[in-house]
Amino acid sequence: MLHFELLATEGRARRGRLTLHHGVIDTPIFMPVGTYGTVKGVSSRSLEEMGAQIILGNTFHLWMRPGLDVLRAFGGLHRFEGWRRPILTDSGGFQVWSLGEMRKISEEGVRFASPVNGDKLFLTPEVSMQIQTVLDSDIVMQFDECTPYETRGHRTTEAEARASMELSLRWAERCRSEFARLENRNALFGIVQGGMYESLRDASIDALVAMDLPGYAIGGVSVGEPKEDMQRIVAHTPHRLPANKPRYLMGVGTPEDLVEGVAHGVDLFDCVMPTRNARNGHLFTRYGDLRIRNARYRNDLRPIDESCSCAACAGSAATDPASRAYLHHLDRCGEMLAPMLTSIHNLHYYLNLMREMREAIVAGRFEAFRARFAADRARGV
Amino acid sequence: MLHFELLATEGRARRGRLTLHHGVIDTPIFMPVGTYGTVKGVSSRSLEEMGAQIILGNTFHLWMRPGLDVLRAFGGLHRFEGWRRPILTDSGGFQVWSLGEMRKISEEGVRFASPVNGDKLFLTPEVSMQIQTVLDSDIVMQFDECTPYETRGHRTTEAEARASMELSLRWAERCRSEFARLENRNALFGIVQGGMYESLRDASIDALVAMDLPGYAIGGVSVGEPKEDMQRIVAHTPHRLPANKPRYLMGVGTPEDLVEGVAHGVDLFDCVMPTRNARNGHLFTRYGDLRIRNARYRNDLRPIDESCSCAACAGSAATDPASRAYLHHLDRCGEMLAPMLTSIHNLHYYLNLMREMREAIVAGRFEAFRARFAADRARGV
Repeated sequence: MLHFELLATEGRARRGRLTLHHGVIDTPIFMPVGTYGTVKGVSSRSLEEMGAQIILGNTFHLWMRPGLDVLRAFGGLHRFEGWRRPILTDSGGFQVWSLGEMRKISEEGVRFASPVNGDKLFLTPEVSMQIQTVLDSDIVMQFDECTPYETRGHRTTEAEARASMELSLRWAERCRSEFARLENRNALFGIVQGGMYESLRDASIDALVAMDLPGYAIGGVSVGEPKEDMQRIVAHTPHRLPANKPRYLMGVGTPEDLVEGVAHGVDLFDCVMPTRNARNGHLFTRYGDLRIRNARYRNDLRPIDESCSCAACAGSAATDPASRAYLHHLDRCGEMLAPMLTSIHNLHYYLNLMREMREAIVAGRFEAFRARFAADRARGV
Repeated sequence: MLHFELLATEGRARRGRLTLHHGVIDTPIFMPVGTYGTVKGVSSRSLEEMGAQIILGNTFHLWMRPGLDVLRAFGGLHRFEGWRRPILTDSGGFQVWSLGEMRKISEEGVRFASPVNGDKLFLTPEVSMQIQTVLDSDIVMQFDECTPYETRGHRTTEAEARASMELSLRWAERCRSEFARLENRNALFGIVQGGMYESLRDASIDALVAMDLPGYAIGGVSVGEPKEDMQRIVAHTPHRLPANKPRYLMGVGTPEDLVEGVAHGVDLFDCVMPTRNARNGHLFTRYGDLRIRNARYRNDLRPIDESCSCAACAGSAATDPASRAYLHHLDRCGEMLAPMLTSIHNLHYYLNLMREMREAIVAGRFEAFRARFAADRARGV
C-alpha cells in the first residue's frame, strides 16, 4: 500500500506526499535512525514532538535482538517500540557485509555466525522479506549487496561493480517474488547500485524500473568514497528514476549533503550523523557547527542556537533553555542528560531543515533558500 | 526565608506546607537527587511533569565541576540547570569524608586534594556556607561530620560518636554565624548526629534546638548500620524535634523506609535509590519490585505497572506505553532509553507514594494506608 503525490517542483527539487500504511509523510524528509528499536537517547514522545514523521529500524539488529518471536508477539515493530507512525527498515544486507571475515557471500545469500550467540545463520533475499514482514515496516528494502568503494586498499573495478550490481538485481527479483508470496501489504523499494560508474547506475536503474517497484533507493554511496565521487553519483542518479515514485538516498549525510540531495531530486534521507555526532558533542546549527567540548563554552550562558525551537534551546513553559555552559558541564561529567539534549537538538535541526526546504519548494524559492542556507552556515555560531 | 505550616496530623505523621524562596512544597515529600546539576537521565521538564517539587544538589560535586565562577555567572544553581522550583543542597561534608585517605579532618575543617585536578582544598563550615550561598539553594545544610557506623571493621564507640556529634554542633554555630554574615536569604538546617546512641541524639537535638534554626535534619543513618539500628534511631528522633519546624531524614531509603519515616513524623526525604536502581534494572511498583533483566520479561507485553501513570507506563497521546519486553530489550542492548524510562518510572513511583501519604494523612486514614501499602507490596507484580 503506497501512494505518492507530487505537490510542487522547482528545478529537480520535489515537494511530495507519501501515503503509507501507518500514515502520510511529507517529502523531502529525513528519517531518524533507530537501530535497535530506539533512536538512541530519544523517546518516541520526543520524536513526535520534534515532528519526526517516519523513523528507520535495522532488520539485522532486530533479528538478533529481541528476535522474531518477540516482535511477532507484538504484531511488529511499531507496537514494540511504541511508535505509531511509519517505519522504514533496511534489508540487513549492509550489517552482514560489515561482519567482514565472519560471513560468506554466494548467489544464494550470506552465511554468517550470529555476533550475539554464535549461531550459524543464513540471510537470503527471501529471509530478509520474511523478517521485514514480521516487522510490518511501511517501507521494506530489497536485500542487496552494497558495493564497496574499496576493499583493503583495492578500489572496486568496473567489472567487480557490475557483477555486484547484477547480483543485487537478481536478488531484487527474488525479493519481489517473496514479498508477493507473503502478501505483504506494505511497499518494497528497489536499490540502485553500480558503484562510482554512471553507466552501471544507468543499467541498474533500467532493470529496476522494469520491475515497476513502488519506490527506489540509491545505495552504495557514503561508503568511504571521496566527497566528489559521492556528489557526482548523487548529481547523476535521482532524476533518472521515475518522477512519479519516491527516491531515497541511503545513509546520507551532512546538512549540506541533504540540501544538495534535494536539489538533485531526492525525497527521503537517513543518517546516524545527527544522533552519533550529538553523543560526541558535535552540534549542528543554522550558523554552522559547534563542538560543545570546546573550553570556550564553559561559561557561555547562551543556548546552542537562539533561533532554534527544540526542547533544549527553547526550554518548556516551566523550565529554562539549556545553556552551552550547562551542556559543556554535563558532557564533561559524563551525564546522560548531555546526549539526551544534544540528540534532540541535532535531530530537530535536521527535521527543521527539511521542513524549510519543503516550504521553499512550494513557494518557488528553493534556489534562494540554498544560497541563504550556505551563507548562514558559513556565518559561524 | 521560610515558613512552615502544619495542615493535618495523624499520630506522629504530618501533612505540611513549606514556603521557600523558589516556591511552596507539600510535605511529606521526596526529593530526587541531582548530584552534578542533573537528576541522572531525567530532564527538568520530566521532573516537572512527574510532580517533583524540590530537588537536591551536591555542593562538593558542583564546587569541583562546573566550579563557582560558572555558577556565579548564572546567579546560582537554578538557572544553570533550568529548574525553577526549590533546591536543597548538602554541605559537601559527606563527599569529603568519602575521599578516605585523601582528606584530613581538624577542628577547623577538612583538607583534601581535588579528585578532579589534584588542587589542595580546604572545606570549612564557612566555605560550605559561601558555596551554598553562590548556589542560592533554598535549603542550605550545615557542614557536619557524618558519624560512621563502623570504620574498617571497628564499630564507632559512644565516646567517638559523642566527640563527632559535638564537633558537628560547634560547626553548626560557625555555619549559623557565616550564613548570617553572608545575608543569605534562604533557610539553614541543622543536622542531628549522635550515631546509634539515643542519649547522644537527644543531646544533639537539645543543642541544635537552642540555636533556633528554621529546620532540622537527621543525619548519620543509612551509613551501613543494620536495618534494626536505623529503625530504632528513626523511631526515636523525629518527634523529639520541634513540631513547628520541618524534619528531614537524610539519604533514606526504600519505599518501606519512607512510609515508616512518615509514620514517625519525618517531612522530607532524599535518596539515590530510585534513580540508581533504575539504571540497574531494579524497578519499584505498587505490587513489589521487578528486576527487568530477568528473562521472564523477554516476552512480556505488559507495562511495568498497569496502575502507574508515569510516562513509561502510560505512554502519551501519540505513543504507546513501554512494555516490559521492550525495556528488557533496551537494557540488554545497553540503550540509553532504558535508564531514561526506568528512572522516570521509579521517581514517579516515589513521588506518587508521597502524594498518597499526604492525601491519607489529610483524610485521617494514614494507618489504613500503611496496612494497604504493605499488603500491596507483598502481592507481587
